[in-house]
Amino acid sequence: MKGFEKMKETFFGIDVGGTNIKFGCFDSDMELLCKRSIPTDAEMGAEAVIEKMADTIELLLSESELSLKDVCGVGLGTPGPADYKAGTIIHSTNMPKFKNVPIRQMLSERLGKPVVFENDANTACWGEFVCGAGKDVNDMVFFTLGTGIGGGIIVDGKMVHGCDGNGAELGHIIIYPGGRLCNCGQRGCVEAYASASWTAKRAAEAVEEGAESSLREVLKIKGEISCKDVYEHLEAGDVLAKKITDETAQALALVCVNMLHITEPKRIVFSGGMIAAGDVLLNRIKDYFDEYIWKLKEERTEICFATLGEDAGIAGAAALAKHFHQKSV
Amino acid sequence: MKGFEKMKETFFGIDVGGTNIKFGCFDSDMELLCKRSIPTDAEMGAEAVIEKMADTIELLLSESELSLKDVCGVGLGTPGPADYKAGTIIHSTNMPKFKNVPIRQMLSERLGKPVVFENDANTACWGEFVCGAGKDVNDMVFFTLGTGIGGGIIVDGKMVHGCDGNGAELGHIIIYPGGRLCNCGQRGCVEAYASASWTAKRAAEAVEEGAESSLREVLKIKGEISCKDVYEHLEAGDVLAKKITDETAQALALVCVNMLHITEPKRIVFSGGMIAAGDVLLNRIKDYFDEYIWKLKEERTEICFATLGEDAGIAGAAALAKHFHQKSV
Repeated sequence: MKGFEKMKETFFGIDVGGTNIKFGCFDSDMELLCKRSIPTDAEMGAEAVIEKMADTIELLLSESELSLKDVCGVGLGTPGPADYKAGTIIHSTNMPKFKNVPIRQMLSERLGKPVVFENDANTACWGEFVCGAGKDVNDMVFFTLGTGIGGGIIVDGKMVHGCDGNGAELGHIIIYPGGRLCNCGQRGCVEAYASASWTAKRAAEAVEEGAESSLREVLKIKGEISCKDVYEHLEAGDVLAKKITDETAQALALVCVNMLHITEPKRIVFSGGMIAAGDVLLNRIKDYFDEYIWKLKEERTEICFATLGEDAGIAGAAALAKHFHQKSV
Repeated sequence: MKGFEKMKETFFGIDVGGTNIKFGCFDSDMELLCKRSIPTDAEMGAEAVIEKMADTIELLLSESELSLKDVCGVGLGTPGPADYKAGTIIHSTNMPKFKNVPIRQMLSERLGKPVVFENDANTACWGEFVCGAGKDVNDMVFFTLGTGIGGGIIVDGKMVHGCDGNGAELGHIIIYPGGRLCNCGQRGCVEAYASASWTAKRAAEAVEEGAESSLREVLKIKGEISCKDVYEHLEAGDVLAKKITDETAQALALVCVNMLHITEPKRIVFSGGMIAAGDVLLNRIKDYFDEYIWKLKEERTEICFATLGEDAGIAGAAALAKHFHQKSV
């Protein structure tokens, strides 16, 4: 009765980071069937890493009593910039051995499955758009606040890729011309103020410059200050932590105002480790947004936090694979 | 032999400004058949103005030996913000009697034709995209440099409207937080530095503050300095005119960098009276863009001037009417 066997339509989402690679297997209703995280081991080189990725997919399938024939597509997210149209990682800051790697084709040939290749912030954005904080809107802007700041833009239900596939690099919007030198070479990028690591760095700088703060003790003991420290000391009433948080919120509110005047999203969604700070951060962003925004019309853009957490990347990558599968059948 | 008469498919584009209303009648190849400009006379009130618009269309048709039955659609551009989805001008700075005017419906009912209603910068953008400086690209950003700065964005061949129809208000991107107070109520908008009128105003301010410049004589004689004066004195070697032009170019380069990281256009097109300044302005914008842009990848975004001049608005409005006509048949 082979003809009557119902094929299980499943989609894999892969989120490649410098440290870990996350895998998620989803059914066609975007229910998560299983997930796994493995070390990237980027120093093994591209071929070995891609082989390990395929092995992990096969392992997860067998653990779920599924096989490759049940997989309709794979979505793959990596940090940018890359040549997403061509499917190639040109070079990668966190994975120096990945030079001119046609990763989409290599993985696709190894698995015998179509692979969708996308910027990792875009996959997380798509995840929140399809099944997270943006699932009921058509126009959304998305920020990940981590070591850097990544971004994604949805316009009228479609992802903005840009002419070369490197649009929505929202961390590199210049908000303070001539300001801090960003890792990208520009001055005054929002990333150089409001990412988790730069928020922490600004706090450490201020302490080193003599600011009074309970964070001084942290710096003395640990040799560094983390973003988490800043928010913990903020909650305990530290004045410097409040100032640092305000500056982060100001920077993020500025890009919210600018994005409103550019793609006019219905919702702006923040994600990444830093949103653990909670309402104290979100409310400051909203306050500054209300302060900075024009008075010509009342704006109804909502600013909120992401809801999928760490799974946004794998969910979005799998949802993209599903999206392209449905367009192709 | 009535059944064999070929219908002439024509489209009207209307560009409503505070001072004049421009009309253009185009055939289905977007060839301009005739055009006209009439005073807006906004103080007559909305009904009278709309009646006059319909009369002008009928007059132009009869002069071209055409009639309303040859018209497939009308495109209408007005300054924003407005409720473009609903087809209503809520209020207008330049036309104070236009309050809550359902202009799309009123004109459509008067003519018995479908009317497309759009922001005037968007119509001009669409004109340049369809038959001007952007006709060979899919991703474009457009700026009009006039009294204010308007904008339009094309992503993958489609216009960005935003959730409320007021996206692409690119003049109100904040480039210098806490900077000059813009007419919109925000501080530091690019419009408050780089529009034609603010460029002129900065020159006058500098002279009043004692800057040495051949523009001092202009201010003494005329009581004001125009943007045209700035560029004429720039050509004659005036140092202040060069400084003012540089600041305009810096502001515009900053929004180019930011738009590159947002929608990553293949081409950025500047239009409006100020582009009469020519290469001296364009080259400075390009220089600052190259100076400000990140070093992570080589960018191939082209920065250029518009090619349709004053006709971009009527051409774009008519092309939008054609676009929607083709989608509906």
